[in-house]
Amino acid sequence: MKITAFTVDGVPMIKEGDDLAEILAGLVKLEDDDIVVFAHTIVSKAEGRRYFLGDIVPTPRAEELARLNNEDPRFIQHVLNNSTKILMRHPLLVETVWGNVCINAGTDRSNTESGYILSLPEDPDRSARRLRDRLFELTGKRVAVIITDTNGRSFRVGQIGVAVGCAGIAALRDRRGDKDLFGHELKITIQAIADEAAACANMLMGEADEGTPIAIIRGYQYLKDDRGIKPSFRTDEEDIVKKALLEMV
Amino acid sequence: MKITAFTVDGVPMIKEGDDLAEILAGLVKLEDDDIVVFAHTIVSKAEGRRYFLGDIVPTPRAEELARLNNEDPRFIQHVLNNSTKILMRHPLLVETVWGNVCINAGTDRSNTESGYILSLPEDPDRSARRLRDRLFELTGKRVAVIITDTNGRSFRVGQIGVAVGCAGIAALRDRRGDKDLFGHELKITIQAIADEAAACANMLMGEADEGTPIAIIRGYQYLKDDRGIKPSFRTDEEDIVKKALLEMV
Ligand SMILES: Nc1nc2c(ncn2[C@@H]2O[C@H](COP(=O)(O)OP(=O)(O)O)[C@@H](O)[C@H]2O)c(=O)[nH]1
Ligand SMILES: Nc1nc2c(ncn2[C@@H]2O[C@H](COP(=O)(O)OP(=O)(O)O)[C@@H](O)[C@H]2O)c(=O)[nH]1
Ligand SMILES: [Mn+2]
Ligand SMILES: [Mn+2]
Ligand SMILES: [Mn+2]
Ligand SMILES: [Mn+2]
Repeated sequence: MKITAFTVDGVPMIKEGDDLAEILAGLVKLEDDDIVVFAHTIVSKAEGRRYFLGDIVPTPRAEELARLNNEDPRFIQHVLNNSTKILMRHPLLVETVWGNVCINAGTDRSNTESGYILSLPEDPDRSARRLRDRLFELTGKRVAVIITDTNGRSFRVGQIGVAVGCAGIAALRDRRGDKDLFGHELKITIQAIADEAAACANMLMGEADEGTPIAIIRGYQYLKDDRGIKPSFRTDEEDIVKKALLEMV
Repeated sequence: MKITAFTVDGVPMIKEGDDLAEILAGLVKLEDDDIVVFAHTIVSKAEGRRYFLGDIVPTPRAEELARLNNEDPRFIQHVLNNSTKILMRHPLLVETVWGNVCINAGTDRSNTESGYILSLPEDPDRSARRLRDRLFELTGKRVAVIITDTNGRSFRVGQIGVAVGCAGIAALRDRRGDKDLFGHELKITIQAIADEAAACANMLMGEADEGTPIAIIRGYQYLKDDRGIKPSFRTDEEDIVKKALLEMV
């Protein structure tokens, strides 16, 4: 198996209403089966998921969590607005409306204007599907789309890219029942392909002023389906770590 | 930024005492600054980390955990021998002697003979350094080496590749203080580069009978240091998830 992966040069500063697919199609020649990876930050910007802190009025609960986290209460209020469950109070680890678990509901202050914050797309799988469909419309190429964010992990220092939404690629490849080199069936292995591809792309995009929010992975053989990233979210019942945290909060 | 990444064809079945660097040098022409990624499974085999289940005598504690996990008590005994702390009893999540946190101390039954089990290398950073040094001796090329395993995560279904050891590459790239596109300093971002590279390589290697335990990432600009993967392990104090689990066990 051999792949190439590269960031796309020349992406401008993205603002609300920008057509990301059109911008991309003008910068690079896509091929069928490319995996096109977008940092959520530009998808969020294009979709108008930017909020002015000055417009947000914090509740006492947000004030309290803000003190605990040494944060702006308005920022915390916004995080709460986008969350259904708090798993940890400090750092503020939540389950988002959309279903994934991350710090601060994925709300960013970096790579956006002072005084503004940026949320994850409202429904990242839908955003991914729209990008894929629009890319097909513009280029005639059938690609997969992954939308990434940079997230921390339990037990390990540092952050990695994860998929927050996808389209045209199976996020999970179930290997249970497949044979290993000695003919034994694998019992538990499910490859989290979308997340591995997200990590690969994120490593190329960087986190600061690189200005490279789109990466393309070319040559990878992946399974196709349209279930998005949602099958990757563990339920409360099957996730013993989540359970433990919910009991502690 | 553009990379190519590819698996190496022709790697034989690895057995104790095999010189992996020599095998690799015979199969591919390395270049300076390649990141050479080895699935731990072949490093473990070459280092004789294969154990015969029939030789292991389980304690009552292992018997109990085995019942809970529907596992072979001898397998569980081996896991306990390689662990310093139990974070979860079912699934059996432990901190290994070596310091990383993973299910079953990374002990494998797949891709090895029936009746045998395979441990992680005793000191994966040391294994990585030896492979790097030996590759330099044989080829004159200065490469980085990462040793991977496939691990599950909290909150998400499926497994991804992570680095269990490395040499010649900084596992972490600290971006705190770097400027974003709007001139603001990043406050918390530390890129877990070795883990992102491991995920990328693992996606190419597969998990079953692909027979491709070595991948090369070429063209990536990385920081060099020799601290290995250890700086990536969170201490008990700084890891609130670990703390919560230790209190529940
Ligand atoms: N060209 C361009 N690059 C951007 C823009 N916003 C962010 N980036 C770049 O996108 C990459 C990822 O940015 P980051 O803030 O880490 O986004 P996130 O991981 O999606 O939260 C970095 O290379 C940023 O410099 C933008 O509007 N235009
Ligand atoms: N050629 C060869 N491939 C192997 C050997 N052992 C494992 N593999 C392959 O290495 C890759 C990773 O195997 P896996 O069991 O997932 O290893 P792990 O992730 O390090 O625990 C798969 O492509 C396996 O088929 C071996 O001895 N020889
Ligand atoms: Mn983000
Ligand atoms: Mn990022
Ligand atoms: Mn393993
Ligand atoms: Mn594996």
